[in-house]
Amino acid sequence: MEGAALIGIDVSKDVDFPEWYQQVLLKGDMLDYYDISGCYILKPASQFVWDEVRAWFDSRIKKMGVKNCSFPLFVSEDVLKREQSHIDGFAAEVAWVTHGGSTKLEKKIAIRPTSETVMYPYYAKWIQSHRDLPLKLNQWNSVVRWEFKHPQPFLRTREFHWQEGHTAHLTEQDAGKEVLEILDLYARVYEELLAVPVMKGRKTDKERFAGGLYTTTVEGYIPATGRGIQGGTSHCLGQNFSKMFGISVQDPNAKTEEEKKNQLLVWQNSWGLSTRVIGVMVMIHGDDRGLVLPPRVVETQVVIVPVGV
Amino acid sequence: MEGAALIGIDVSKDVDFPEWYQQVLLKGDMLDYYDISGCYILKPASQFVWDEVRAWFDSRIKKMGVKNCSFPLFVSEDVLKREQSHIDGFAAEVAWVTHGGSTKLEKKIAIRPTSETVMYPYYAKWIQSHRDLPLKLNQWNSVVRWEFKHPQPFLRTREFHWQEGHTAHLTEQDAGKEVLEILDLYARVYEELLAVPVMKGRKTDKERFAGGLYTTTVEGYIPATGRGIQGGTSHCLGQNFSKMFGISVQDPNAKTEEEKKNQLLVWQNSWGLSTRVIGVMVMIHGDDRGLVLPPRVVETQVVIVPVGV
Repeated sequence: MEGAALIGIDVSKDVDFPEWYQQVLLKGDMLDYYDISGCYILKPASQFVWDEVRAWFDSRIKKMGVKNCSFPLFVSEDVLKREQSHIDGFAAEVAWVTHGGSTKLEKKIAIRPTSETVMYPYYAKWIQSHRDLPLKLNQWNSVVRWEFKHPQPFLRTREFHWQEGHTAHLTEQDAGKEVLEILDLYARVYEELLAVPVMKGRKTDKERFAGGLYTTTVEGYIPATGRGIQGGTSHCLGQNFSKMFGISVQDPNAKTEEEKKNQLLVWQNSWGLSTRVIGVMVMIHGDDRGLVLPPRVVETQVVIVPVGV
Repeated sequence: MEGAALIGIDVSKDVDFPEWYQQVLLKGDMLDYYDISGCYILKPASQFVWDEVRAWFDSRIKKMGVKNCSFPLFVSEDVLKREQSHIDGFAAEVAWVTHGGSTKLEKKIAIRPTSETVMYPYYAKWIQSHRDLPLKLNQWNSVVRWEFKHPQPFLRTREFHWQEGHTAHLTEQDAGKEVLEILDLYARVYEELLAVPVMKGRKTDKERFAGGLYTTTVEGYIPATGRGIQGGTSHCLGQNFSKMFGISVQDPNAKTEEEKKNQLLVWQNSWGLSTRVIGVMVMIHGDDRGLVLPPRVVETQVVIVPVGV
């Protein structure tokens, strides 16, 4: 059984898909537009979906030993730029704070587009021994990417909500195993909670995360256009960030004094799932009568609209 | 029974309270300092406390009919300044974004110091009839107040996490009742979850929320200094914001055509509880051996530290 809101949508999904999508979101009471371009209001119906996804995923990663934390929204320019190929991927989209009140800041400060460079200086400090590994942290927050492309509710927005997991491991094998475990959970969010089919796969080199080693992804598809859409990504960062930020431990198998001097760079992963899931879900399930939500993420199971008086 | 981490604090709570507080937080693994002044990292132990407070409070307000939502992090200068006495209270502390990538924005954009002015233009749009009342929304997010005073972990920080509830009511009576219900919940967070005594009361006119009608508060106290500290505030905003933002409904008791023209301004409340609760809790329960956490908000119930080898 599905909870469905029957609202008059005056355009067919097959005829004008972008217009249909907008109307479904607005008339389905999921979202409202905001007076700053690329920013949207998540109304209670869509927030409820996200809160359900959050509760489900959070309980699963806790079983994997992941703990939640909160790193700041802000990152200094120096730290942001420490990993060159990473910042090259984000520089054009970074929002900069230059003033506090009427006072010009000595140095401009970035709003995080993602938290690798925010967090990893502290991983270098906290990880002193192989006994500190694995370190598995996650945060639920919002990030900002000031894109100039045409925004799309839930799909391409300047601020979006997500979870970002950041883990450090002793071996490539441990890191690689986790990458796929998380990818499995992402697929289950789509398939079990949202009733949306996705394909698991690996991104091409061109599409992989800036600064990472390889990127795995769950990909959905957009009806009408028939195009694929990235649904959630689980990256193995390899040792690139650990090298740049100096995150290393003594080899636990070292025996000789010479071997003990040998520092091993940790293997890192990062993985994120965003409110984009809501957009993909709406695109798949909505129809010409309006919004259709899968039962596991809907607050109101049935709405009966009496017609007439 | 209490979960306690026994860590070597090398200063007495009675002798140097500020230094003691810092050491307890750092050595108790609650927090780390960050390279941007006034910003801190909430490590898993303190995030766990906040997540417990969140789960408890969220379930209570849901029973009151409050729904969660997410409004954007950003607010345009025009909208921020619409309510003069309100902005006067915050203007000196607003962080301004002026650039996206290397592009200068046409108009600078503020990061919300609180969301009254972010949300109420939409309340004006969504509230068209008394049947749309009460409107009770809440969001869990972080806000930014770029203070130049000396920062204190959890107590005075440039970014902090909180919940902010924003409600609109038909009558002064309904609004006033909710103000006190929320204040009761805040007192229970302190007393039942955190085992911290607080006093309920009303702020003086000088201390009340900028733009509001009256502010109720739970006040804790800081040991050693013996000074009071604001623990959480529940504001009745009266009709000041509804007047400025044009949030009104037709009088449901109107009978004549003349009376039906009479628009009633809604009565509004806003209420917030922040991660400050963690700081107050630590100050109350910590001792010269270090961090002491009350059992309801601690992940690890007992830590036994073997001494010697």
